[in-house]
Amino acid sequence: MNAEIIAVGSEMLTPHRIDTNSLYLTEQLNLLGVDVVFKSIVGDNLRHLVAAAQHGLFRSDILIFSGGLGPTEDDLTREAVAEALGVSLRRDPEIIGKLEKRFADRGWKMTPNNAKQADVIEGATVLPNPNGTASGQWLSGEFEGRERIVILLPGPPHEMKALFEQEVRDRLRAKVPPAHLFTRTLKVAMLGESAVDARVAPIYKRYPDVDTTILAGAGEIELHFKTRAATLEDAQARADEVADLVEDELDDAVYSRDGQSLEQIVGYWLQMRNATLAVAESCTGGLLAERITSVAGSSRYFVGGAVVYSNNLKTEFAGVPADMIVRHGAVSREVAAALAEGIRYRCESTLGVGITGVAGPGGGSPEKPVGLVFHAVASDTGTEVIQRSFPGDRKRIRRFASTMALDMVRRKLM
Amino acid sequence: MNAEIIAVGSEMLTPHRIDTNSLYLTEQLNLLGVDVVFKSIVGDNLRHLVAAAQHGLFRSDILIFSGGLGPTEDDLTREAVAEALGVSLRRDPEIIGKLEKRFADRGWKMTPNNAKQADVIEGATVLPNPNGTASGQWLSGEFEGRERIVILLPGPPHEMKALFEQEVRDRLRAKVPPAHLFTRTLKVAMLGESAVDARVAPIYKRYPDVDTTILAGAGEIELHFKTRAATLEDAQARADEVADLVEDELDDAVYSRDGQSLEQIVGYWLQMRNATLAVAESCTGGLLAERITSVAGSSRYFVGGAVVYSNNLKTEFAGVPADMIVRHGAVSREVAAALAEGIRYRCESTLGVGITGVAGPGGGSPEKPVGLVFHAVASDTGTEVIQRSFPGDRKRIRRFASTMALDMVRRKLM
Repeated sequence: MNAEIIAVGSEMLTPHRIDTNSLYLTEQLNLLGVDVVFKSIVGDNLRHLVAAAQHGLFRSDILIFSGGLGPTEDDLTREAVAEALGVSLRRDPEIIGKLEKRFADRGWKMTPNNAKQADVIEGATVLPNPNGTASGQWLSGEFEGRERIVILLPGPPHEMKALFEQEVRDRLRAKVPPAHLFTRTLKVAMLGESAVDARVAPIYKRYPDVDTTILAGAGEIELHFKTRAATLEDAQARADEVADLVEDELDDAVYSRDGQSLEQIVGYWLQMRNATLAVAESCTGGLLAERITSVAGSSRYFVGGAVVYSNNLKTEFAGVPADMIVRHGAVSREVAAALAEGIRYRCESTLGVGITGVAGPGGGSPEKPVGLVFHAVASDTGTEVIQRSFPGDRKRIRRFASTMALDMVRRKLM
Repeated sequence: MNAEIIAVGSEMLTPHRIDTNSLYLTEQLNLLGVDVVFKSIVGDNLRHLVAAAQHGLFRSDILIFSGGLGPTEDDLTREAVAEALGVSLRRDPEIIGKLEKRFADRGWKMTPNNAKQADVIEGATVLPNPNGTASGQWLSGEFEGRERIVILLPGPPHEMKALFEQEVRDRLRAKVPPAHLFTRTLKVAMLGESAVDARVAPIYKRYPDVDTTILAGAGEIELHFKTRAATLEDAQARADEVADLVEDELDDAVYSRDGQSLEQIVGYWLQMRNATLAVAESCTGGLLAERITSVAGSSRYFVGGAVVYSNNLKTEFAGVPADMIVRHGAVSREVAAALAEGIRYRCESTLGVGITGVAGPGGGSPEKPVGLVFHAVASDTGTEVIQRSFPGDRKRIRRFASTMALDMVRRKLM
């Protein structure tokens, strides 16, 4: 069976908003063995919505709408689906009662427009919304000789997700042929996308039944191996067969295989080694500390650090000798090492990290062009410095540099 | 005239990738006075693509495809559009020559699959791609009695944008009725969405011809006023009429009206006042410094700071007395003020910022629950501290706190 997701709302036809509900819905549908073959975005316009619903009923087995279930004049999904199916709407007194109670509980009187949310498509099952006033609806049956499932979900993500989990998933599972999908994700640090693909393509091409996807970010690559089988165990075994071979090939460049971020993995290693970390950042300007502290509980291993944007602060907070900066320049192997060693000493941490580079767009020179970054990790066994030249804009260069530093810490602890 | 955007690529039907090209295209089309009424995402499947193209030709005046123009078997947009229009493809020798030259220039031999990129839909104008091998195509004419424009663009954003700007914009402008759109954007800090709407709705409702949109983030709200008129001057004058009234109402909560970010505005003010800034962050963990330094040239006014996650570092880097932390707790009005004053003193900056709070999910208590944050700004005239309780998860609380601190700096300098 295949599915089509229709996101409803004129705001998603502006340059400012994008449909993201479909990512969650796609993941959930894939887990049930259902492929998404179309996604559409339609504005709050009855004629357009009816046309989209008709077209969806024609081409897809499962049609999921998100949005357009609120109380305003613009909320037209119920009307449009009823019209496309050629059935009527009935106003459900039970929903009216619940809505009135919900308002009364808050000491408010329900405004008349809210009654619209009690309109139910003929033949539909009402799906209670645990987090809002707009109920979902479920329809299943024959439409022009074809089996169809039509699901109406509210647009706000936390309402849509809760309603899907509580009311839709099991209903769908009962309808779709049993199939189990499993996805194994390998995350890889500091290798290029084409280099990774060249090394692993000979492996995954031997598994045409495994759906392999490679996603690349700045310094991080994800490999997804998706399988489908009669049991979850079989699906997982097949995905892991490819993943194991790929992990052997890429060796310790693979930092996680259960979805954890590089920040989380670094946190695990630090805790496993009973170690602490401090950082002194110049060109990344706090990004490295921000990424480390985005992990809940990071205070257990991250003591803190300094953002040493000015040369004075490199000396003041990380003890970099002023004459070293004059002699080698702030962006240099020597200063990176001194930052890492100095911040480790000042913060009394097991490891110290130093980053200095040219994030651009200004500040580059022929000897030290935009993108040049020195990364250092200091420990009781000495200091390692790695120099790299990263491509891209300021944002991308900073992201690359912070990933490089995290990966150096990971490798140091492994 | 209205438009439909069809993003082509199976990767956008997975849980991992989303179509973002349509945001740029929508903005460009809006500027030409064209509304986008549908967006679709279709996989690399000929049957699905033909159906989407046929449906688009039926319902929309302008049909823009992005993606599916590469050299692989999966790249099927050309074939699908030709089939939907009922015309054939011809292989263009001139494009073949250019492709061969492009490969030869790099010392490579063109592989045969690349020839596919020379397939041109009957009646189409070839649009050279300045940044890649896949040419765009432009078709304009009658289709089943209706005037239609069909545009094929490559998928990679930098190719798509360059091609649109160089080859598509002027062609479209010549085809669509002259109309000028203008959008004025007001950005507002640290007011709630419903509070803002309650204050400004009475104003913008008097301008039904102005399309008003309110977008809310953590601590930041954007108000967009979109107008359409025969001349750009008229459109701008009308948008500014509403924007001026709204700005009067919201007063100094409005921090920008030309699209600048709060980080940029803070940078402008610091430079205008010839002032410098240093920050000492606890719960935001580097996010504030990261936001400030995300602006190119921020080294002119940002000297740096400290991420003082551990209590020791609060003392070591910002001179917070250890007994003050014991007496009041690390999350307290007193420590926030001491962080701001201490970092200002240590960094010899005009202003110092201190942030301490409970970002969660752990670490909260009945007296100091998750979301409680103290923000301080120290200057030569004294120290201001603001306490807030922010809703949401760790990420949202940290974002709120960093925005609050930036806004305090802005107000201090105004």
